[in-house]
Amino acid sequence: MSKVFVNIGLSLDGYMAPEGMTIENWSNPGHKNWGANWGAMMSWVLELQYFRDNLKFGPGGKTGPVNDMFRHTMERSGASIMGKRMFEQGEISWPEEAPFHTPVYVLTHEKREPWVRPGGTTFYFVNDGPESALALARESAGSRDIRISGGANAIQQYLNLGVIEELEIALAPVMFGSGRRLFENLREPAPRLRIDKVLDSPTATHLRYVRE
Amino acid sequence: MSKVFVNIGLSLDGYMAPEGMTIENWSNPGHKNWGANWGAMMSWVLELQYFRDNLKFGPGGKTGPVNDMFRHTMERSGASIMGKRMFEQGEISWPEEAPFHTPVYVLTHEKREPWVRPGGTTFYFVNDGPESALALARESAGSRDIRISGGANAIQQYLNLGVIEELEIALAPVMFGSGRRLFENLREPAPRLRIDKVLDSPTATHLRYVRE
Repeated sequence: MSKVFVNIGLSLDGYMAPEGMTIENWSNPGHKNWGANWGAMMSWVLELQYFRDNLKFGPGGKTGPVNDMFRHTMERSGASIMGKRMFEQGEISWPEEAPFHTPVYVLTHEKREPWVRPGGTTFYFVNDGPESALALARESAGSRDIRISGGANAIQQYLNLGVIEELEIALAPVMFGSGRRLFENLREPAPRLRIDKVLDSPTATHLRYVRE
Repeated sequence: MSKVFVNIGLSLDGYMAPEGMTIENWSNPGHKNWGANWGAMMSWVLELQYFRDNLKFGPGGKTGPVNDMFRHTMERSGASIMGKRMFEQGEISWPEEAPFHTPVYVLTHEKREPWVRPGGTTFYFVNDGPESALALARESAGSRDIRISGGANAIQQYLNLGVIEELEIALAPVMFGSGRRLFENLREPAPRLRIDKVLDSPTATHLRYVRE
């Protein structure tokens, strides 16, 4: 059966996004330095060959174990779920061939027809909550897995539903001091985790936790 | 010259202490389950041979690279600094031969004569702030290093002074949901860190960061 997993970058002090990284300031990455802060947190992925190729950044990029892990993350995903804010930021940032190549379910109150992109990505706008989005994602993922892509609020909702089986964090050696925390608004009891794998690199420590 | 360093246990969601772990509930570890929560976070150290020996817990315990790292942490320390709350909890918990074997400077408003323990630990009560405590610790540490022992508030004060050169975190695969966060109340700019070393174990991931 499909696994439900998370694979994200996180600052050492627990933020998924720096202060100032909002849709209003999308074209102004100097605002509170959000662009440089986010770039420092995500440099581990921005430098990867597979990521660059998938986002049409051009040739080059790092190969090796982190690149292989990232490719595996993308290839195992049969469907993704994301929050409205992440979608809105992506909508104006992704290349025309959006980088998912699967159905993507967007948690939103907005009513909107599915948005079909070339290359196999279709965004569906789900208005009736995270459980409904998960049911749709399960149906379309087949034997592949379901990625809760982000942002923080969407991941918190699925942590609180108790459905996340694998939590993969690229912990970057940067501190933001403020921003959107990943671990907040969590209901008890928290999931019981075990450390499954740790992969070290200069730009992030890749921590993989599996629910017990 | 002496290095100023931190070596602590941390929950995956960023807490140094679980909700309910207060001096008022010290004899009631079932209160909000703080005893079990803290024990789960700190199991990596509670199981070590060197720790057990130093705390007079009796023989046995794990040897190996984490034990060696922990012994090194203790042996490199020529002085420690801690907050008032950590001291108060330790005062009623440490064995008569307190486990530091060096001067320990306690940040407190309380005026009190030095408290000399057998085995080389003397607690000094510093009333005029973290910079003063650090100057005293530097003087007594000689060529050895200065450990900011905790708790969260004391570490935040020294992070904000910009003096912490090495940050060692044992990141445990547990989530508390609430408690005392390590990374809070931090002033910008945050220190620039690089990942110096990662040591993996089943009970915690040992992350060592060095200030650039």
